[in-house]
Amino acid sequence: MIKKLQNFCFRHKLFLPNQSLVVGFSGGPDSTALVLFLNHLKKSWKLKIFLLHINYGLRGKASLADEKFCFKMAKKLALPIKLVTYKSFSTGGSANLEERLRDFRYSELEKEREKRKADWIAVGHTLDDSAETFLFNLIRGAGLRGLVALRAKNGKIIRPLLGVRKKEILAFLKEKKQSFRLDKSNQSLKFSRNRIRLQLLPELEKKYNPQIKKRLVDLQEHLLDVEEWLERETKKLFLELVRKENWGWSMERKSYENLSRAERKSLFRLIMFNLQGNLKNISANAFWELEKMILSNKSKNQEIFLKKTRIYRQGEKIIFSIKEEE
Amino acid sequence: MIKKLQNFCFRHKLFLPNQSLVVGFSGGPDSTALVLFLNHLKKSWKLKIFLLHINYGLRGKASLADEKFCFKMAKKLALPIKLVTYKSFSTGGSANLEERLRDFRYSELEKEREKRKADWIAVGHTLDDSAETFLFNLIRGAGLRGLVALRAKNGKIIRPLLGVRKKEILAFLKEKKQSFRLDKSNQSLKFSRNRIRLQLLPELEKKYNPQIKKRLVDLQEHLLDVEEWLERETKKLFLELVRKENWGWSMERKSYENLSRAERKSLFRLIMFNLQGNLKNISANAFWELEKMILSNKSKNQEIFLKKTRIYRQGEKIIFSIKEEE
Repeated sequence: MIKKLQNFCFRHKLFLPNQSLVVGFSGGPDSTALVLFLNHLKKSWKLKIFLLHINYGLRGKASLADEKFCFKMAKKLALPIKLVTYKSFSTGGSANLEERLRDFRYSELEKEREKRKADWIAVGHTLDDSAETFLFNLIRGAGLRGLVALRAKNGKIIRPLLGVRKKEILAFLKEKKQSFRLDKSNQSLKFSRNRIRLQLLPELEKKYNPQIKKRLVDLQEHLLDVEEWLERETKKLFLELVRKENWGWSMERKSYENLSRAERKSLFRLIMFNLQGNLKNISANAFWELEKMILSNKSKNQEIFLKKTRIYRQGEKIIFSIKEEE
Repeated sequence: MIKKLQNFCFRHKLFLPNQSLVVGFSGGPDSTALVLFLNHLKKSWKLKIFLLHINYGLRGKASLADEKFCFKMAKKLALPIKLVTYKSFSTGGSANLEERLRDFRYSELEKEREKRKADWIAVGHTLDDSAETFLFNLIRGAGLRGLVALRAKNGKIIRPLLGVRKKEILAFLKEKKQSFRLDKSNQSLKFSRNRIRLQLLPELEKKYNPQIKKRLVDLQEHLLDVEEWLERETKKLFLELVRKENWGWSMERKSYENLSRAERKSLFRLIMFNLQGNLKNISANAFWELEKMILSNKSKNQEIFLKKTRIYRQGEKIIFSIKEEE
């Protein structure tokens, strides 16, 4: 399996010799295997490895035992490890608990990476997680971008285990006589993600297609390729067609009309991203409103308001402007 | 609902006044509603409508009753109708029964369209069918192209009901006091498609997301946009990079290398389609073999055989050639 993991890291250019990594280490089988694997490469690849364990304090004694396990293993491997304790009041908002924990996890990993000036954040997602996330996002109703969320490399985050199955991980740990911790809350059906893992995916495998996980991951990879192509083309279109103005961006109605719908949609999102710095509150509906305004010949001077943005037509120009803070 | 259907046909430019349609009429609720709807437009749109009923003879007396129902309704509406009887030996091959029936159905509809010199084949798929087909193809393991299989307009086939839910169809029929036939075999869990409709989708709706059908259809529409964009871009690449030769097609290795993976994959499929007239036997694996051959620097003169096609490198050229029938 070490060989397979090395090939995967090589093929996806996940990291290079002499680089440094912050590893998210929960003590579960995946991150334990990840730590073992990276530690195995450490000498020959001259890697610098820092472990980060987060104690969410949500499972009382079990949480404390996870923490102890991680520190013990770090000591045995002589790897530096740091503890972060989650305080439930530290992030608020309306997101559900699962989302809040994930946001907290990635933000702590990123803080640590910056502090250590490390190259990458490594996390232990497997091929099973990838299939599961795909279904999860599909069922929630994600667009193309949402469906390809779990990438082998995404910004500073790398996922060296994404090419292997969970059962390979377990076999590897057994072979290495390496113990690990099991998070009981992963067995709870309270979270829909757990239900997808423990009920839906096994049911689909049993009743419909034993190869479903591999199929979903193949599809995801293909969609990722297509999405990257579309993103690249959209950037080109942006440079070609969209002009910077003092108060935002503008483009000719004619050039917008000549694009295919996929290009129009993608370009709209890129303009909004450049205008607002994010895509929050930009629903699919906003795009359809824009379409109606631009493609209709009846209404010459309509306008749309999206949060802090005003979009309107001025003769043959479309104007995307940000409202000034007053 | 008539208004909604008209809007849908108009928005997707499904057919024009004065055109003629062959309608697949099974007697079930969907095709019955479709016939009613088209007949309603007949006068004002000056449509020519021909009905085609296929008796598969698989359900004995029930099949015969379906046939009688269709002929009676055709007579009432004064629409011409034709009967085709399915003979199980008429199409062979290894495909399962469901696939064979579908192939038979579309080939008979196309024969009739040609004979009548009609513009379109209209079939009664609804939004529910669309969500179901999406999941069916997803679970089987389709690529992007496979996922967008059920289009409002695909070649000569149009689907005027694709924008409405099954329950709207049933309400419409009730309002019109129009009876219809129920195919009991649609209630059988023998076919995985039926299982998806009767078990999986209701379960996903209940346990995960009540809006799942709409979400899947939205996603499908978005993927269709992306797919259409991709097809158009690939055609551009083809015209730019691929040269016709006596024995097939050729392109420069350098130009292939400079493309993104999505472009390479899509261009490869288009070349194979132009060479063979179809994409049968072109697996994802064939693409990876091609990649290995072209992108590797070690092996200068490898070749790949795919059914009737030979692909090889000649210096800096890649040659796609069809083997002559001997």
